[in-house]
Amino acid sequence: MARSGQKLQIFALGGLGEIGKNMYVVRYGDDIVVIDAGLKFPEDEMLGVDVVIPDISYLVENRDKVRGIVLTHGHEDHIGAVPYVLRQLNVPVFGTRLTLGLVGIKLKEAGLASQARLQPVTTESVVRLGSILVTFFRVNHSIPDAVGVALTTPEGVVVHTGDFKFDQTPVDGLHADYQKMADLGRSGVLALLSDSTNAERPGYTGSERRVGENLKRIFKQTRSRIIVATFASNVNRIQQIFSAAELTGRKVAIVGRSMVNVVGIARELGYLKLDEARLIEPEEATKLPPEQVVVLSTGSQGEPLSALARMARGAHKTLSILPGDVVILSATPIPGNERFVARVIDALFRLGAEVIYGPASETGVHVSGHGSQEELKLMLNLIRPKYFIPIHGEYRMQRRHALLAEEVGIPKNHIFVLDLGDVVEIQNGVARLGPRVNAGQVLIDGLGVGDVGNIVLRDRKLLSQDGILVVVVTLSKQKGTILSGPDIISRGFVYVRESEPLMEEATRIVTNTLNRLMTENVSDWSSLKNNVKDALSRFLYEQTRRRPMILPIIMEV
Amino acid sequence: MARSGQKLQIFALGGLGEIGKNMYVVRYGDDIVVIDAGLKFPEDEMLGVDVVIPDISYLVENRDKVRGIVLTHGHEDHIGAVPYVLRQLNVPVFGTRLTLGLVGIKLKEAGLASQARLQPVTTESVVRLGSILVTFFRVNHSIPDAVGVALTTPEGVVVHTGDFKFDQTPVDGLHADYQKMADLGRSGVLALLSDSTNAERPGYTGSERRVGENLKRIFKQTRSRIIVATFASNVNRIQQIFSAAELTGRKVAIVGRSMVNVVGIARELGYLKLDEARLIEPEEATKLPPEQVVVLSTGSQGEPLSALARMARGAHKTLSILPGDVVILSATPIPGNERFVARVIDALFRLGAEVIYGPASETGVHVSGHGSQEELKLMLNLIRPKYFIPIHGEYRMQRRHALLAEEVGIPKNHIFVLDLGDVVEIQNGVARLGPRVNAGQVLIDGLGVGDVGNIVLRDRKLLSQDGILVVVVTLSKQKGTILSGPDIISRGFVYVRESEPLMEEATRIVTNTLNRLMTENVSDWSSLKNNVKDALSRFLYEQTRRRPMILPIIMEV
Repeated sequence: MARSGQKLQIFALGGLGEIGKNMYVVRYGDDIVVIDAGLKFPEDEMLGVDVVIPDISYLVENRDKVRGIVLTHGHEDHIGAVPYVLRQLNVPVFGTRLTLGLVGIKLKEAGLASQARLQPVTTESVVRLGSILVTFFRVNHSIPDAVGVALTTPEGVVVHTGDFKFDQTPVDGLHADYQKMADLGRSGVLALLSDSTNAERPGYTGSERRVGENLKRIFKQTRSRIIVATFASNVNRIQQIFSAAELTGRKVAIVGRSMVNVVGIARELGYLKLDEARLIEPEEATKLPPEQVVVLSTGSQGEPLSALARMARGAHKTLSILPGDVVILSATPIPGNERFVARVIDALFRLGAEVIYGPASETGVHVSGHGSQEELKLMLNLIRPKYFIPIHGEYRMQRRHALLAEEVGIPKNHIFVLDLGDVVEIQNGVARLGPRVNAGQVLIDGLGVGDVGNIVLRDRKLLSQDGILVVVVTLSKQKGTILSGPDIISRGFVYVRESEPLMEEATRIVTNTLNRLMTENVSDWSSLKNNVKDALSRFLYEQTRRRPMILPIIMEV
Repeated sequence: MARSGQKLQIFALGGLGEIGKNMYVVRYGDDIVVIDAGLKFPEDEMLGVDVVIPDISYLVENRDKVRGIVLTHGHEDHIGAVPYVLRQLNVPVFGTRLTLGLVGIKLKEAGLASQARLQPVTTESVVRLGSILVTFFRVNHSIPDAVGVALTTPEGVVVHTGDFKFDQTPVDGLHADYQKMADLGRSGVLALLSDSTNAERPGYTGSERRVGENLKRIFKQTRSRIIVATFASNVNRIQQIFSAAELTGRKVAIVGRSMVNVVGIARELGYLKLDEARLIEPEEATKLPPEQVVVLSTGSQGEPLSALARMARGAHKTLSILPGDVVILSATPIPGNERFVARVIDALFRLGAEVIYGPASETGVHVSGHGSQEELKLMLNLIRPKYFIPIHGEYRMQRRHALLAEEVGIPKNHIFVLDLGDVVEIQNGVARLGPRVNAGQVLIDGLGVGDVGNIVLRDRKLLSQDGILVVVVTLSKQKGTILSGPDIISRGFVYVRESEPLMEEATRIVTNTLNRLMTENVSDWSSLKNNVKDALSRFLYEQTRRRPMILPIIMEV
């Protein structure tokens, strides 16, 4: 029962207008529930940045109201920011066993394992967070133990699908919980937040089982060694690779840190079945006959430091590609990674390997974990929400998802295509846009959280384009003469040995500029520096059409 | 008739193991013929580099033997390096009218228009270059006036397809010259070099005409303003856009420098037909009713500086996107450009435009200019070469093309999958790999040709990741004390105002290091600098996990 004056607020701190760093917030009165806390990998122009997380200043300002973080599944873009958030907010974290298992790895690495309050839930759990009641329903995704979340608030029920597809023949036999979703729809849902990742893709996303059948076929046909690269978190895929290995009497070697981690935790928790005897160390793999070996590896995205990329350039400590090896890329490149993947494929071919790659539709060795248009419409029709908010996608995907919602009959003015920080307020059953909250991104570079901002990135960009020149000169002001220098040191500008005349001329120009200024009795630092900067910059641009950063260091004695 | 002792050599200075900077060389005795001279756009890690051209040191060393450069068509990756080559080699350049027209634009910009020896050819031309006779045959491609080349040498005939597809219903009505190709095949071809771009793609590439039909349909259905972005060089596509405009009574505004250039030259040479009255200035477009306007724009690859990208971020000088505008992306992203294109699409949607984008197979507003597997096999069967060299593709594409050649019956040992600089030598009808020639890439940054090498790029990479710290200190050696400083100036490292304690501590560490060294009477420059570098670098890595470049500047008075 809604309390007078209170209202329901729904917004995102991450995951809108982007794929990654998912973080959604549902607030009723003084109770805040956070759904997911993910990270994102940096855009090309975020030079030197390691990862990007949501700006959680809103949560920090309202720390006393945050009742907990609810995780939908164990992918980086949903759990990757948990350690950073817990450093600033000491709140309980709810998730299914596998999800919390994966979070546990991160917390250990961050040295937060002891103080974190991880609370396992099942699809049967009911969690009360202040005035908000949280229940869960199973969905299919490219990682087991993925759930959607239903939040019952005094204003009504809010449903968040998490990442989902409808797999009618799931590998683990666990179907999406159609009945629970249908019940939610029957009893009335105020607002639905649904995964827009594949909103541009017509039809249905295929079943993971089909991938398993294709892998088995390839394993059977292959007489040489097999190397399969896939996402470490795709536990069901890994299970199917294990099964194919068992079927064809191959031992399994696992390479790549994240792969070892995930397989370890997943086996420990019983999400992966493979008898101990079948697992071998990479070293052993080099001794066994090729046809008795399958290597399970990271690097399906061509990441230069991944195990597969190392093998491809002959830089892996134990494994090297043998002519005849069959390499299966059981994944598709995430936009932006195409070049990396292509390079790895070419390098593997050059080493004589046979590579199975290309559109999943042709190879059959990969399938998306996100539902396509027909599945998104099915979700909308199961939940039958009054209001709809497409989430988890770039703007065009959210927009496409909105059109799908209109197709299934949701009125246009009940659909909210939001940006980060836009707030949907619902009171007495009526939704409207409320005042925005603070939202954005925090860049993480090494141990630095947020100390890399636009100025730093602008400088890195400048430095990366044309390098830097440092001009060092010592003046005697009373004498009005140059005592030492100017010395010009350049980095990333030109290959100096080939450009001596250029640098000599540059030095002359600095000298002349300074002498002129001193005879004109110009003596304040900034004018001296700026004049040197401008003169040098103009000269270098004329000569080279480049604009290196120029750092004049003028000293006096 | 082959001369005793002489041999035929075939190799590539660009275009193998890559898409771009095509340059192939056919040499018989002392006669060298160069086919194409293209550029390539830099890889992500070539920071600050503008374009990449082939290393032509082989041609420069043999300048007296180079008889000419033969161009197959007017795309950047085939003609873009001509100005750079002509600066080092004064040789005649042969090409069809449109191709030379486009080369002319580049030569004018480079100030080489006067001295260049451009020699127009037609498909009927016969050009004697020393002992090599060059003839031409028409092919279909995404630019008119594209030809393949047949080189009759004393050792036999070498055929180079250029970039091609077989369009059975070409827009300009000019079919590929099947008869000539068949004749070549009948009379016997020693070696074929063929375009591998789409060797991974099954079936046939569609006809350009189909694109025109779809564009007309969209133009007819649309009541608002239309903006079409495509490759400036795709003259046939542009003609179809003009025709659709005429059909629906729209005026055409052209934006984007390269689009203006190409349309200008193509109309001048009669490859584009559009009555003057229909062309309008961008300014006019803003005044006419939307349904009477189509804007033809660059930016189909999302290039940040292109006209379309400027419009998308509201930064174009004359045109701004209006709600309801229909934007047609009549192209597919070149691998590596996906993110740029996606951003532009999202920005356009945010401005209320309707964007037609996505897989060409779905939108029907684009088609590749390169033949797919069935077309590549058809070419092989028309030419029936003794030896086959797949060119113009990344390694996996060359390899795939080689497999297609085997399928149509060319013996494996008659197929050469080459790297740049690998030489196929043919003597008395027998081909073998000869000694390699010098080949590689030259990076162009501004006016600098080749002065950006690995050292410079490594520094730029370093600078782009963690920035730079300059440490300035003045010592008095006889006193063994620090006179001034150390002052630490950082760029691209941390946002200084938030990191004062860090920088203060860093300064202390430099001071202590120097004092220690001076009390130990260590006084040679390099030890002082290296010790400062190491101490500071260690400290900063512990504190920040970053490794900025450190530049110690130690002076004495």
